[in-house]
Amino acid sequence: MKDFQELLAEARKCRPKRAAIAVAQDGGVLAAARECYEMGIAESVLVGDAAEISRIARERKIDISNFEVINEVEPEDAVRRAVQLVREDKADILVKGAIKSPVYLKGILDKNTGLRVGRGLSHVTVFEAKAYNRLMLMTDAGLNIMPTLEQKIVMVKNAVCVARSLKIPQPKVAVISGQELVNPDMPSTIDAAILSKMAERGQIKDCIIDGPLSLDLALSKEAALAKGVVSPVAGQADILVLPNIDAANVLYKSIGFLAGANIIGLIVGAKVPATLPSRADSHETKMASIAMAVLFASKEEEKLQLSPSAAHGETMKIAARS
Amino acid sequence: MKDFQELLAEARKCRPKRAAIAVAQDGGVLAAARECYEMGIAESVLVGDAAEISRIARERKIDISNFEVINEVEPEDAVRRAVQLVREDKADILVKGAIKSPVYLKGILDKNTGLRVGRGLSHVTVFEAKAYNRLMLMTDAGLNIMPTLEQKIVMVKNAVCVARSLKIPQPKVAVISGQELVNPDMPSTIDAAILSKMAERGQIKDCIIDGPLSLDLALSKEAALAKGVVSPVAGQADILVLPNIDAANVLYKSIGFLAGANIIGLIVGAKVPATLPSRADSHETKMASIAMAVLFASKEEEKLQLSPSAAHGETMKIAARS
Repeated sequence: MKDFQELLAEARKCRPKRAAIAVAQDGGVLAAARECYEMGIAESVLVGDAAEISRIARERKIDISNFEVINEVEPEDAVRRAVQLVREDKADILVKGAIKSPVYLKGILDKNTGLRVGRGLSHVTVFEAKAYNRLMLMTDAGLNIMPTLEQKIVMVKNAVCVARSLKIPQPKVAVISGQELVNPDMPSTIDAAILSKMAERGQIKDCIIDGPLSLDLALSKEAALAKGVVSPVAGQADILVLPNIDAANVLYKSIGFLAGANIIGLIVGAKVPATLPSRADSHETKMASIAMAVLFASKEEEKLQLSPSAAHGETMKIAARS
Repeated sequence: MKDFQELLAEARKCRPKRAAIAVAQDGGVLAAARECYEMGIAESVLVGDAAEISRIARERKIDISNFEVINEVEPEDAVRRAVQLVREDKADILVKGAIKSPVYLKGILDKNTGLRVGRGLSHVTVFEAKAYNRLMLMTDAGLNIMPTLEQKIVMVKNAVCVARSLKIPQPKVAVISGQELVNPDMPSTIDAAILSKMAERGQIKDCIIDGPLSLDLALSKEAALAKGVVSPVAGQADILVLPNIDAANVLYKSIGFLAGANIIGLIVGAKVPATLPSRADSHETKMASIAMAVLFASKEEEKLQLSPSAAHGETMKIAARS
């Protein structure tokens, strides 16, 4: 897919999903929810301050008459209630409203009342790579701070699942580091080498992994050739795996701020996908977030139908080991 | 200063310096050396394969008749000899020629034959921030892999010295992290808070430090205001301090590859400044690297004349502790 328009078109082909919006008193989110409803992508349950939700909908002239509204005035309670809807199979995706990320994440990650299902969670960013005329993915700018090798394996697998729901059957994964040579003193290069070999051995499936690669080599075949690096991924990476959240955030902000690209974010690996966009998102980006979650949820559904017990077997083992 | 042209003009005002070029058999470096000579910025000693140097100079029609040539065929030997010239006070700056960075760095860092003088070393990047119409600095994309707090202090001090040689008397330093809130689980945010306080207490001088700041907040006052962050640095950072080499490299490549900016790099903290550019540098960038080293060396000279014993006292103490 080349952009978010195509992503939205693809989501329209799925069976509509039910979204639980956590802290729904937000004009942008309500407008996106309404438009997704009209496009047949998702219907929403609005969890939050009901009076505020009504006021904002009236003010912004957004028709919310088709949506169930659940009144929870306190943001923490609204998150808990939205998460609860997912736990009770009353919602297929979770959508972030007017709530700070840490509170939202706490609701998802809570060991007792959250959405953990025994596999690792990670954040996957999808952005419009205009220079390449296609969507690209990046991980992890939102959740794993200094990921261990085990966590990086989860990050790769989750990103590969998202890529596959974007119709990239065999994504090319670039494990980014400060340099392209393995340096025993530089942990990011070591992990990259290990991940590459694991994909070669079939321990990480459905993708081609190469690393360490510096960002320019991942993005440019010419840059790789100039450095004498022969790589099946260089210049054609679908997924960029960053060594830590600081590096990921620098890339995230470079893409958004310097290159002006549209970006969406998903928390993957919980019971259902949960949107985690940044605060400055546009209306189109908010809709694309929901559409992405719908696409991902549909793909997971398919997998469960194909093989109900084995769908996440391997990921679960790894999460259990770590 | 707004760009490398201005930097070159400033370097012309300094007393000319003597550059030792390590492994000088490189057309680009020879051309830059020649032009710097004509501009009265620096004269060069060409250390390397003398036959190759002559051949390249003839082929590229570069006049090297004013330069001393020292024949060292093996690259390792050429680096050692160029470093030796600096140790014997026969050169004021070290310039990287056709040699891989690790070999070049090994020559500088060698405990017995290198250029260590008891203070910490770091890599400082200077780039043309076109959107801001001025030069900006970034550290450390070349040397400190996972810097400790002590190493970050050195990184800040070295970058501040470079900024001051660029006529930024009180540089604003943004300590970059994945987020702007202090998170006890996220070491980069902790170090940023500590560095900020150290500058407030006068333990790090001649600069204003604020962090943690995400990249967009460092670059945009509006982004900071939108997040409710009041910062003397947001939107006007002169120096970006990155938490690790992976994050720094992502920014380096984003600036160069995505934003198309010109970039130069210096190793700072050794006996003399040493250029460490990336391989894809243009002719103008190669000249700017030399000019930057000359400016920095001149500033250090001034400092030594003002206060011969105390110039690096504080940095030395810190390096000794770490």
